Amino acid sequence: MLITRKVEFSASHALRRELWTEAENVACYGAAANPHGHGHNYIVEVTLAGNPDPVTGMVMDLKELKEILNREVMEPFDHRFLNHEDSPFQTTIPTAENIAIEIWRRLCAPVQRDGVRLHAIRLWETPDLYVDYYGEEDSND
Amino acid sequence: MLITRKVEFSASHALRRELWTEAENVACYGAAANPHGHGHNYIVEVTLAGNPDPVTGMVMDLKELKEILNREVMEPFDHRFLNHEDSPFQTTIPTAENIAIEIWRRLCAPVQRDGVRLHAIRLWETPDLYVDYYGEEDSND
Amino acid sequence: MLITRKVEFSASHALRRELWTEAENVACYGAAANPHGHGHNYIVEVTLAGNPDPVTGMVMDLKELKEILNREVMEPFDHRFLNHEDSPFQTTIPTAENIAIEIWRRLCAPVQRDGVRLHAIRLWETPDLYVDYYGEEDSND
Amino acid sequence: MLITRKVEFSASHALRRELWTEAENVACYGAAANPHGHGHNYIVEVTLAGNPDPVTGMVMDLKELKEILNREVMEPFDHRFLNHEDSPFQTTIPTAENIAIEIWRRLCAPVQRDGVRLHAIRLWETPDLYVDYYGEEDSND
Amino acid sequence: MLITRKVEFSASHALRRELWTEAENVACYGAAANPHGHGHNYIVEVTLAGNPDPVTGMVMDLKELKEILNREVMEPFDHRFLNHEDSPFQTTIPTAENIAIEIWRRLCAPVQRDGVRLHAIRLWETPDLYVDYYGEEDSND
Amino acid sequence: MLITRKVEFSASHALRRELWTEAENVACYGAAANPHGHGHNYIVEVTLAGNPDPVTGMVMDLKELKEILNREVMEPFDHRFLNHEDSPFQTTIPTAENIAIEIWRRLCAPVQRDGVRLHAIRLWETPDLYVDYYGEEDSND
Repeated sequence: MLITRKVEFSASHALRRELWTEAENVACYGAAANPHGHGHNYIVEVTLAGNPDPVTGMVMDLKELKEILNREVMEPFDHRFLNHEDSPFQTTIPTAENIAIEIWRRLCAPVQRDGVRLHAIRLWETPDLYVDYYGEEDSND
Repeated sequence: MLITRKVEFSASHALRRELWTEAENVACYGAAANPHGHGHNYIVEVTLAGNPDPVTGMVMDLKELKEILNREVMEPFDHRFLNHEDSPFQTTIPTAENIAIEIWRRLCAPVQRDGVRLHAIRLWETPDLYVDYYGEEDSND
Repeated sequence: MLITRKVEFSASHALRRELWTEAENVACYGAAANPHGHGHNYIVEVTLAGNPDPVTGMVMDLKELKEILNREVMEPFDHRFLNHEDSPFQTTIPTAENIAIEIWRRLCAPVQRDGVRLHAIRLWETPDLYVDYYGEEDSND
Repeated sequence: MLITRKVEFSASHALRRELWTEAENVACYGAAANPHGHGHNYIVEVTLAGNPDPVTGMVMDLKELKEILNREVMEPFDHRFLNHEDSPFQTTIPTAENIAIEIWRRLCAPVQRDGVRLHAIRLWETPDLYVDYYGEEDSND
Repeated sequence: MLITRKVEFSASHALRRELWTEAENVACYGAAANPHGHGHNYIVEVTLAGNPDPVTGMVMDLKELKEILNREVMEPFDHRFLNHEDSPFQTTIPTAENIAIEIWRRLCAPVQRDGVRLHAIRLWETPDLYVDYYGEEDSND
Repeated sequence: MLITRKVEFSASHALRRELWTEAENVACYGAAANPHGHGHNYIVEVTLAGNPDPVTGMVMDLKELKEILNREVMEPFDHRFLNHEDSPFQTTIPTAENIAIEIWRRLCAPVQRDGVRLHAIRLWETPDLYVDYYGEEDSND
């Protein structure tokens, strides 16, 4: 059984490589290469796999999950310019793909419980674009 | 190929174990332990797996599916307090997880056709929380 | 200028008059007359009218509004059976219409500021049904 | 990793077999057998599987994907009566199932890149009905 | 107080005047001039104005409203090609504007009750386009 | 009659006054005072008032409206950091309120036609917050 919680954060990013010329950045990333950045209301869907506890009927205590999401996702990402303030994106381009991978890395260990593991991260950048990441061991799926 | 139909029902539930003290119930379930119950507009996504019939182009006759959903989901759950009126939830806690499992049990046999089987139940409790159930045989996925 | 904040609460209600017979209640309210109640994810849209402050650019400090909404809407309504626990609905039928009027009454004074007043309450009971209330002075509109 | 782009087109279709009598068509397809057709705002979710490029952080250049979707989906389907103008549906019934298969066939080769392949087509016919197609090689999933 | 019910119908339409040349039609209506038509999932929001009955707490019995909407909107419009089958649109162009006016005309008298009148029709043609009609007496608003 | 078109742009903004100390900015704007900015998928609903042309059935040619929206909203705002690149927001705080007023000012004259005028701008900053602006002449409503 899978259980999924959605959270939303507002952040900005710029898609550009400092090693490239302006023309190279625009050719690759279009308007998203603007060095001042632009922003999104990102939606994160965090999916856990596990079986409901036979006594409580719950896969995981959602109050604990909320604390983990606040600490690992909302505090470092909400109301931030991702390239400037959150360390991995000073060297990694914060595409939707890379943000999803970073959220996976931050959540994978903290949500793990006996019989419960992180199954997927879905990150919506706009209402028309989202990515799904299942961790490295599932990358051949 | 998968085909998914959404239906919605309005119900209330209370998350509490009568064997526990009030304090134990609140520690586990928070405000949801309120004995008078509270409610949701539950959304059910019923997913069937099969191949479209080469003549009709359809995996299943959706008029038949609608009748099954009315009988097995809407009649027993819509406009009900799940703990009181629907028998399994007099002894099982009606968490989203357990409601999804119960809907699977009710639909699994009736929707089965030659080459068509129930694939998944997705149950939304709120716009920010949903569970997916694939039946017992898929629980290792 | 109008500014609108949405909040959501999960509650249950029963539409029935104790003075009426069961048959009269069902004739009037249908399945919603079930005495055990049923529930909804209610969405409240609170609309304030005012002009943005020329210095801050804001009609109202949204942190203050959030505190008022938590105290006047979320605490008394969220995770409640409205007929049992919230006093006006022990004698008033908690239809969507009456819940919207009650929310107006609770918010009207607390949100008032110099140049800012409550303009409207929109209450969604389901994704297909909502009511709008503009206070008594606007009832001829 | 999966990346999904949504596009929308407005089209009409009629579900009927010319070899059948009117009564047979209505028995099978209901009101959808109306020979003049009826329509939908179809939503297509195109999902690609691949790993983000280590330099650009992107699975695929979305500007290229947009051109392919315009040419292969929007031009032949948007503002069309599918039975009349788009060849496969002159002989194949344009059910949601068959439209999804046709979109898969049109997109499968053009989106293929080194390390990137088409993973799924989700087609929404209405907000309450969608189908998922994973190509023939995945039909046993 | 206002109360709004949403319903949805699937229909097709063609925007073209038979008196005009093909070029004139395309210049005015673009791809929507296609004579075979194209379609939409139209959403209608029907808004009534009135005060809740002091006994029942309801502006109008929603079961009665549902019957009226089925008879006046769903039966004539759902699963239809509007230009062919519904008489006013054989001579009036079925733009979103004109469909909203026609729905107003059909509903205005049937929903009228003592103290209750039709207030507005909102018609969504796509998720990005809607029109609002308030009847002729309000056309100066 | 009113007709409304929705468009969406992705931008970032910072809510802070350079004349204030950091503490004053945080007291007023909270996390939104972050000088690097943060972002949103802003949704603009542009509402025009007019009567449908008796020949075409349309209030306004939507192809013309699209060009105006591209020139006046999408080009200056999409993929921008509003404080840096769009002149009025170098001196005016880009709150949702002020962005809506600026969009009104940009669109008011270009959309005006014989019998058609701009009626309202609704700007959504997040799915839970929007503002409505009706121009200065309506500010007493």
